[in-house]
Amino acid sequence: MPGSSIGQAFRVTTWGESHGPAIGVVVDGCPPRIPLSEDNVQAELDRRRPGQSGLTTPRREADRVAIQSGVIAGRTTGHPIGMVVHNKDARPADYEALKTVYRPSHADYTFEAKYGIRDPSGGGRSSARVTVGHVAAGAVARRFLEERFGVECTAYVKRTKDVEADVDPDTVTRADVEKTPVRCPDPEAAARMVELIERTRDARDSLGGVVECSVRGVPPGLGEPVFDKLESDLAKAMLAINASKGFEIGSGFAGTRLFGSEHNDRFVMKDGRPATETNRAGGVLGGISTGMPIVFRVAFKPTSTIGKAQRTVDSEGKEITLEARGRHDPCVLPRAVPIVEAMACLVLADHALRQASISTEQQPSG
Amino acid sequence: MPGSSIGQAFRVTTWGESHGPAIGVVVDGCPPRIPLSEDNVQAELDRRRPGQSGLTTPRREADRVAIQSGVIAGRTTGHPIGMVVHNKDARPADYEALKTVYRPSHADYTFEAKYGIRDPSGGGRSSARVTVGHVAAGAVARRFLEERFGVECTAYVKRTKDVEADVDPDTVTRADVEKTPVRCPDPEAAARMVELIERTRDARDSLGGVVECSVRGVPPGLGEPVFDKLESDLAKAMLAINASKGFEIGSGFAGTRLFGSEHNDRFVMKDGRPATETNRAGGVLGGISTGMPIVFRVAFKPTSTIGKAQRTVDSEGKEITLEARGRHDPCVLPRAVPIVEAMACLVLADHALRQASISTEQQPSG
Amino acid sequence: MPGSSIGQAFRVTTWGESHGPAIGVVVDGCPPRIPLSEDNVQAELDRRRPGQSGLTTPRREADRVAIQSGVIAGRTTGHPIGMVVHNKDARPADYEALKTVYRPSHADYTFEAKYGIRDPSGGGRSSARVTVGHVAAGAVARRFLEERFGVECTAYVKRTKDVEADVDPDTVTRADVEKTPVRCPDPEAAARMVELIERTRDARDSLGGVVECSVRGVPPGLGEPVFDKLESDLAKAMLAINASKGFEIGSGFAGTRLFGSEHNDRFVMKDGRPATETNRAGGVLGGISTGMPIVFRVAFKPTSTIGKAQRTVDSEGKEITLEARGRHDPCVLPRAVPIVEAMACLVLADHALRQASISTEQQPSG
Amino acid sequence: MPGSSIGQAFRVTTWGESHGPAIGVVVDGCPPRIPLSEDNVQAELDRRRPGQSGLTTPRREADRVAIQSGVIAGRTTGHPIGMVVHNKDARPADYEALKTVYRPSHADYTFEAKYGIRDPSGGGRSSARVTVGHVAAGAVARRFLEERFGVECTAYVKRTKDVEADVDPDTVTRADVEKTPVRCPDPEAAARMVELIERTRDARDSLGGVVECSVRGVPPGLGEPVFDKLESDLAKAMLAINASKGFEIGSGFAGTRLFGSEHNDRFVMKDGRPATETNRAGGVLGGISTGMPIVFRVAFKPTSTIGKAQRTVDSEGKEITLEARGRHDPCVLPRAVPIVEAMACLVLADHALRQASISTEQQPSG
Repeated sequence: MPGSSIGQAFRVTTWGESHGPAIGVVVDGCPPRIPLSEDNVQAELDRRRPGQSGLTTPRREADRVAIQSGVIAGRTTGHPIGMVVHNKDARPADYEALKTVYRPSHADYTFEAKYGIRDPSGGGRSSARVTVGHVAAGAVARRFLEERFGVECTAYVKRTKDVEADVDPDTVTRADVEKTPVRCPDPEAAARMVELIERTRDARDSLGGVVECSVRGVPPGLGEPVFDKLESDLAKAMLAINASKGFEIGSGFAGTRLFGSEHNDRFVMKDGRPATETNRAGGVLGGISTGMPIVFRVAFKPTSTIGKAQRTVDSEGKEITLEARGRHDPCVLPRAVPIVEAMACLVLADHALRQASISTEQQPSG
Repeated sequence: MPGSSIGQAFRVTTWGESHGPAIGVVVDGCPPRIPLSEDNVQAELDRRRPGQSGLTTPRREADRVAIQSGVIAGRTTGHPIGMVVHNKDARPADYEALKTVYRPSHADYTFEAKYGIRDPSGGGRSSARVTVGHVAAGAVARRFLEERFGVECTAYVKRTKDVEADVDPDTVTRADVEKTPVRCPDPEAAARMVELIERTRDARDSLGGVVECSVRGVPPGLGEPVFDKLESDLAKAMLAINASKGFEIGSGFAGTRLFGSEHNDRFVMKDGRPATETNRAGGVLGGISTGMPIVFRVAFKPTSTIGKAQRTVDSEGKEITLEARGRHDPCVLPRAVPIVEAMACLVLADHALRQASISTEQQPSG
Repeated sequence: MPGSSIGQAFRVTTWGESHGPAIGVVVDGCPPRIPLSEDNVQAELDRRRPGQSGLTTPRREADRVAIQSGVIAGRTTGHPIGMVVHNKDARPADYEALKTVYRPSHADYTFEAKYGIRDPSGGGRSSARVTVGHVAAGAVARRFLEERFGVECTAYVKRTKDVEADVDPDTVTRADVEKTPVRCPDPEAAARMVELIERTRDARDSLGGVVECSVRGVPPGLGEPVFDKLESDLAKAMLAINASKGFEIGSGFAGTRLFGSEHNDRFVMKDGRPATETNRAGGVLGGISTGMPIVFRVAFKPTSTIGKAQRTVDSEGKEITLEARGRHDPCVLPRAVPIVEAMACLVLADHALRQASISTEQQPSG
Repeated sequence: MPGSSIGQAFRVTTWGESHGPAIGVVVDGCPPRIPLSEDNVQAELDRRRPGQSGLTTPRREADRVAIQSGVIAGRTTGHPIGMVVHNKDARPADYEALKTVYRPSHADYTFEAKYGIRDPSGGGRSSARVTVGHVAAGAVARRFLEERFGVECTAYVKRTKDVEADVDPDTVTRADVEKTPVRCPDPEAAARMVELIERTRDARDSLGGVVECSVRGVPPGLGEPVFDKLESDLAKAMLAINASKGFEIGSGFAGTRLFGSEHNDRFVMKDGRPATETNRAGGVLGGISTGMPIVFRVAFKPTSTIGKAQRTVDSEGKEITLEARGRHDPCVLPRAVPIVEAMACLVLADHALRQASISTEQQPSG
């Protein structure tokens, strides 16, 4: 019933608050004998951590991960992998003044309504800082998927406000993505995005946009009808990321404007197995992976914390004016990229393990 | 690990195939003493069943539900509610010719890749016929939500292909929705939708669109951070509906085009408690209900089964031409409306029960 | 949170009450392509059903099972297997007089305390009649275990009150068990048990005892540390059977009277793999199967329903005298035998599937 | 599917190995606003930690717990409580020689069969050291149960090998238990136990026995039919404790030797509510608490590690002689007492929260 776990076979549980001593995560169910090092995890955390460029929050966190269990001699043991990242630049005192304020479009009010108590420091458990755990766990899932299936999972900024990039999900690479500080593999669009973000930051305002993710190398057969379809679990995972407001797979909302005869993906034989000529399905049919790239998009609203003055109320119902002074990102998209990838890897690893109990049975039992 | 269940506290498990003897569902966890009759369930099933109008499939199913357990003297007992709907117009023989065909944009290929065996009759378990179980279970959840909280859950067709309706989610009622055969409460748009669907049906083609859902009366506090946010579970439930390709809540994808200063919902006091002036959040903040209407949209692709000739391959890799003769809907949207509502009610009932273990603790334990 | 499901990978959900229209069960997660017929299930139900001999309740139920989904052409499809058994000899009216009585050692009072409402007919959901679902599901699990691993699961009455049988768990067969109406493979002890049960029935009293179960052919490696040990899940499953009050595995309570040097099982090589000379462990070490026979025992209290007059209170707190007239067994042990086997098969099938996601990974990933 | 979590509403996940850097546990689902300090947790850990007396292992661990999240200003927040205990006296090198040995009655062989890899240091994840996490989590559950219901949970050594204590479960207190180093509240039996344990230790052998637990103050109504009965979940939790081989509740195995007329507990009115004159049920009927004390017993086999020479095989199948030199307890019972209590509290807290979603509904919905 509590909500800090995700996955059934590849099971992830996180703990920790924005300004507490540490953020932690437990990965239970990772198969044994997968090569895994702290460096594998650190590499992903480094892409998520604050202070990477002038476009992100100035909070200074090295975000050094320590693997505390579940790995010996560079390989997983099959036992839970406990990981801890200490918060170094926590400043709970900064939030003293916000203790009773309901910040617009933040979770202050809802947390108080739900629990009757809340940690006022930087949103406590509602902070995007908790995605440290998501990314650490996602790094383990990614290692597993790479090792077992050669899966490549690549997310990127597809649109920032109205600036849209042109990207081919069938060929984009992480190297392309990392070339620009906004993690947009279309250099021309990236330049305009940077300019827009800087202008918005200077205006003490914020921006949203869309992250697209392409996962290649997923074998056919992952996903469980009726309720645990692959796209259902991806949608759930993406809507769990802070600030996300929408998810679509394949043709998504735009595809609803086509006729069936225009939308259907024709099956053809490719390399001796069925594939589809087009991929409006986004790599899933009936909730199960087709073997084609899985392509989906996530909508992120503009960051709720802005420097501009805003009217709101406090917990006594008093009207007040708020001018944020906390450290925050004018645009979360570049740092959302590794989080989207991490969540996608968690879902895929989970379904890959769930499929094991089905597909092993297809061999004759002799 | 298998996927035919949804919900943790309000737990639903379905079984049955399109052309098997029956579809069934078990609702475990419904609180005791909720008034419930077969009529309550039948009323929702009647909205979903085929053959309601010329716009839907001619398959003739009365879809009569029998409650087999969990209710005595018109009230729930707290024990599992078993419900069964017999298939009357099943025609497995109709599908003999399709046994080895991979129908475009259907789950034939993926089911075979996953299980190594498949039921060729009308898609078997992948058929939208299984949503009979969703709707029956949703009817129980709806009774619970009405009884306990006065919740009103109303879905409707917001857009059919390019024909968009103008609907106010704060005031729309089921009566408005039921006035038109397309379940669109904007009569002018509804008329154009009907005309479009008929034209498309006659062209042996199909259509998609968007269903919007508004849920009023949800108390603040429902939803579990970090992974089981209310919008996460709604997204998951909606992407589990056959033919859905996208989900967005509140401002959704369009909201990503605003600045933060335009997008944030200002808190004000209303009737003595905090509310927001606008509702771009769609009724959730930080994954928890705010008390404002929950408003979300679901994208449905055009129906995959079309009469027009299509090229595809069969399980031996042979290229073939397919012309569907099965009974099917040119546009699933009108019948998707009660399914969207049912799934929303399942998610909300689940979270209402999950919240019970938290909120009861807020009273002093004295 | 509700409790009518068991298993994670091989997931079973039951519904139905003693005197309602039917008992049902859904098995979700059974791998595809396992040979399964209604006869396989019926054979197990026939061993559980009432009226088999003069030693059991005279309630007359044919207990005919109908498989409603999840099987085509004699093989499982990987989709949920819905099964229904109609109650033919339900007599709710017989229980009218008991509506407000708290029968001693029955669940009348606790159900009322828990739910604020109860079905007075034969205990409703608390009746042992619900084990129809356990046995039907267990039959599916048994088929899977036989087919995949050649597992043999054999339970028998080890002790009735003070009459103890001498049975070798390494060699006992179902044929031995079925030779006597008390399902005790020691003919001499069986004869004394029959005599004791008849005498007790005539005295309008009841008896308890111990069922032992031996499972041979379980491969090493099943069971999940730390909390889902094989013996943990067996214990849980056995304590869920009506009237059970204890569980022990291997040396159990008696083994606590030995020194470690007497109790430890020495490893030796047998047929080229490690085995133990003795099996005080009962086939598990550290929660994981060793490959040796799994041997455990379950304690069943004497049947709570007796004909003798008993003092108790009713729901208004009034003292009353109760003389049962319902149809009941003087001794549940013979009919508990197939239930114990069914529950053991459910647990083992679940862990066999859970192991799949671990062991498949042990092959090099190429 | 992985097994390092327990509980559904009060959800506990542990990680860590015997000789790794730390043992950790996450408690998710503890209701908000429960008073909780590190001292509450430390007090329980101090009862479990090694080196308390000459009767236990000489491994020196302070077992200092740090609460890393989920608590502010001395109260729980409703968010996951992350706790970490660092291993100070880990000596992986001590186990170098055991790397390939299958120690008798240990999990070396089964872990290797299951995972294809194992941590040889002190059993790694199979070590009883992991119960540090159980006890820390149990301390949180205990605080919740005390605060909300005034529950008193008291376990004690009931029997060591053949030395049995005389204890009244209706009145025993923790103070009584803590008076003797063996945690047996019968001083005369305790003295004989101490003498027996010392003699056995000197003979380089080991002992087992029985721990009994009495839980008073549990309200009626906890436990979920059909599969998640209170006694089912207690049995599961107890069989998950290292070295346990059996569980019985109330009259248990001995009760199977009585007639029904002797065994049934007569209902009477006490303090205005139904109670039973006797308590052979052990506080549960039909899987649900009655309000009477919950009384159960757990069988612990003699410690597997002994100093005496033993024959066994190694992973290459070679016969060898083993003489343990590791640090270990000649008798685990005194240290098992707080573990049994912790596990009992976890199960009860979980069911108390699960009941919340049922009982809140019993109030009129006005």
